[in-house]
Amino acid sequence: MANLLIKNCIVIPMEKNLHEPGERYFVGEIAVAGNRIVHVGPVGTVPRDFKAERVLDAAGKVALPGLVNAHTHAAMTLLRSYADDLPLMQWLETRIWPLEAKLTPEDVYWGTKLSILEMLKAGVTTFADMYFFMDQVAQAVQESGMRASLSRGIVGGDRGLQALEESEALAEKWHGFEDGRITVMLGPHAPYTCPPDFLRTVIGKAKELELGIHIHLAETADEVETIKSRYGKRPVELMEEIGLFEVPVLAAHCVYLEPHEIKILSDYKVKAVHNPESNMKLASGIAPVPEMLEAGVTVALGTDGAASNNNLDLFGEMRAAALLHKVNKLDSTVLNSYQALQMATKAGAQALGLTDVGILKAGYKADIILLDFEKPHLYPRHDVVAHLVYAMQASDVDTVMVDGRILVENGQVLTLDEQEIYQKIRECSQRLTS
Amino acid sequence: MANLLIKNCIVIPMEKNLHEPGERYFVGEIAVAGNRIVHVGPVGTVPRDFKAERVLDAAGKVALPGLVNAHTHAAMTLLRSYADDLPLMQWLETRIWPLEAKLTPEDVYWGTKLSILEMLKAGVTTFADMYFFMDQVAQAVQESGMRASLSRGIVGGDRGLQALEESEALAEKWHGFEDGRITVMLGPHAPYTCPPDFLRTVIGKAKELELGIHIHLAETADEVETIKSRYGKRPVELMEEIGLFEVPVLAAHCVYLEPHEIKILSDYKVKAVHNPESNMKLASGIAPVPEMLEAGVTVALGTDGAASNNNLDLFGEMRAAALLHKVNKLDSTVLNSYQALQMATKAGAQALGLTDVGILKAGYKADIILLDFEKPHLYPRHDVVAHLVYAMQASDVDTVMVDGRILVENGQVLTLDEQEIYQKIRECSQRLTS
Repeated sequence: MANLLIKNCIVIPMEKNLHEPGERYFVGEIAVAGNRIVHVGPVGTVPRDFKAERVLDAAGKVALPGLVNAHTHAAMTLLRSYADDLPLMQWLETRIWPLEAKLTPEDVYWGTKLSILEMLKAGVTTFADMYFFMDQVAQAVQESGMRASLSRGIVGGDRGLQALEESEALAEKWHGFEDGRITVMLGPHAPYTCPPDFLRTVIGKAKELELGIHIHLAETADEVETIKSRYGKRPVELMEEIGLFEVPVLAAHCVYLEPHEIKILSDYKVKAVHNPESNMKLASGIAPVPEMLEAGVTVALGTDGAASNNNLDLFGEMRAAALLHKVNKLDSTVLNSYQALQMATKAGAQALGLTDVGILKAGYKADIILLDFEKPHLYPRHDVVAHLVYAMQASDVDTVMVDGRILVENGQVLTLDEQEIYQKIRECSQRLTS
Repeated sequence: MANLLIKNCIVIPMEKNLHEPGERYFVGEIAVAGNRIVHVGPVGTVPRDFKAERVLDAAGKVALPGLVNAHTHAAMTLLRSYADDLPLMQWLETRIWPLEAKLTPEDVYWGTKLSILEMLKAGVTTFADMYFFMDQVAQAVQESGMRASLSRGIVGGDRGLQALEESEALAEKWHGFEDGRITVMLGPHAPYTCPPDFLRTVIGKAKELELGIHIHLAETADEVETIKSRYGKRPVELMEEIGLFEVPVLAAHCVYLEPHEIKILSDYKVKAVHNPESNMKLASGIAPVPEMLEAGVTVALGTDGAASNNNLDLFGEMRAAALLHKVNKLDSTVLNSYQALQMATKAGAQALGLTDVGILKAGYKADIILLDFEKPHLYPRHDVVAHLVYAMQASDVDTVMVDGRILVENGQVLTLDEQEIYQKIRECSQRLTS
């Protein structure tokens, strides 16, 4: 990869907590060498000895760390719009599960490619996935150039140990691939699908392999009731008791939390992933995000799968989060635009255990997106950060760089064949629903 | 305007209440003569004697009635991102009102042009506006080719009667312009800014001029308390008592309604406008939309002004509405995608008193949009209507026709000079904030 200089852009580094809107961005330049950022500063500050082999003049564009989709099931793009506006159990039992039962490894490969095409165009540079046929998912990620944290979803019972073995094989093959562009976590599905003894086995394996755990936690009121009736405790209490939080945990949803459970998440540095559109669409509930942030919990943002969203657009999730919590608290100061943007960038990277991703700073991985602000909905420009959260469209993404490599230019994905993907998806979709 | 045939598109007529997703659309063609639709039907059904001077092959595109933004303050685009995440009164008193006090007629003209540029690109063909310097607003609408219902905002007190006179002059000049492309309503701002006696004068004038009334109603809990303490009644009760509902009323917000007030709105056929993103962002509250629909109230959708949204994207409003009410009721079947789409099309036109707009049917005005579905977030296509509400981006709008005239083609607005608007907005914005 060539040395590259991005010039004259509005830079939003996202490194610090900044309270004055005007402090949050400046006009400047970013130098990239290999897969790393080597300089970020105002115009004219790039070191003289930096030899750029390519210069991108990004005048009028905004540079932001690539967005992190911290919880999804990428291949579920295949089920997008297949079932909507249904009661949860009817949705799962009569529509989603029967179709998922038909999925082949090739379906998952193409469904994941479709999701990557969509996410890259929308400025997402990293995603955390939990699904099955994960070797095909890894293959799609590898080919696309995107960054991902992959978990084979594991349900306890007869096939649980086999899925755990598959997870170990996945980690052996892919964890740490290309300087950490692909990483692996273990993916026990949820407290209600993985009994405590089985979870203890998974936790032991995570410690042995030094991997984190990606899990659904406290997503619905039904889950809380189920766990309480089975074990006499709430989900987070039970997870603490069996030692889940002794390893790094990426906990998706966290909708139903009592204050003492928020403290547990904070004490153990559990990373929460808020999925506002999915929680709204499935009518799961409203996660106590302001309370988690107040307690110091790292809260990332995710789209969940496309069957319950129905897109993979982090700009939409930022907006949904910022709006939902305001009206829920009847307080228009709750979850301001900068906090929402932090959730989608810096906090997302932290949640996935990526210590050198998520902000624009020398030494960090070069995951950078450039946004085209020459759009009517982005005029005038009193506050660029507010625009990103309250007015942006995913289609305003112009350029996407992951790990120092340009994957999207002028809105076109360079590493994927868009028409081929559409054709394959039409074929998969027709077979699955016939 | 030439006779025009749109061929091979997926047509969503929006005429009927249809419960089976598959019945809601078909592959067909639409014939337009002058400013009217003359035929809508399956492929090959256009009458033989229809001579098309232009044929649009819309294979792979979706044809939908143009969207109706039933409540906005168009020129407030000038204040977009000027003040966010603030308490309501601080937002108004320290930011919005001082800047609005500086607005000139020329600012309002250019702010409106920016809003029209944004709305047309996003598939909005009609908007209902309440602001001031409305002659400039009408001028911008006239030049753009868009459809609009215009109201001069009126606040009671010293200048109320003058504003009412301006409204009458506006109606004389513009009401019914070009076969009804521009219509006028009277715009008393709200029950708390227009005392009952003054409102009675406005109602009398509306009856005299045979105009409808566009008003903010029951938007915030503060409004309800203010009206109760002044008059011993709730806002809707007070409006019924003074006779407001004896004329056609477009009531924006309708957030705070008791069941008996919903019945009042239903009995008098008051049209409500739901503004979900503005109500969320300003933390006003959640309107009882499912209850209003259940009671037979016509509920349209609006963006409100760009200062409290911050875009003018009806696709976003449909999604926000469908998601918000599901999570609010903890019921994923509430406000399905077809209902949300009805609110943004047919119900919007009805709310503005436009009897021949809002559906695709012979005899109706030719307000038609074509949507480009060759996008990753719109694959696969199990349900096209679900895509429109849950996955669409405003930028997927390809072609926009208003009153039989093509205003947008390939996403480019033909009747406005985009660069000129941006330049003028930069100038206005700089002067206003300096």
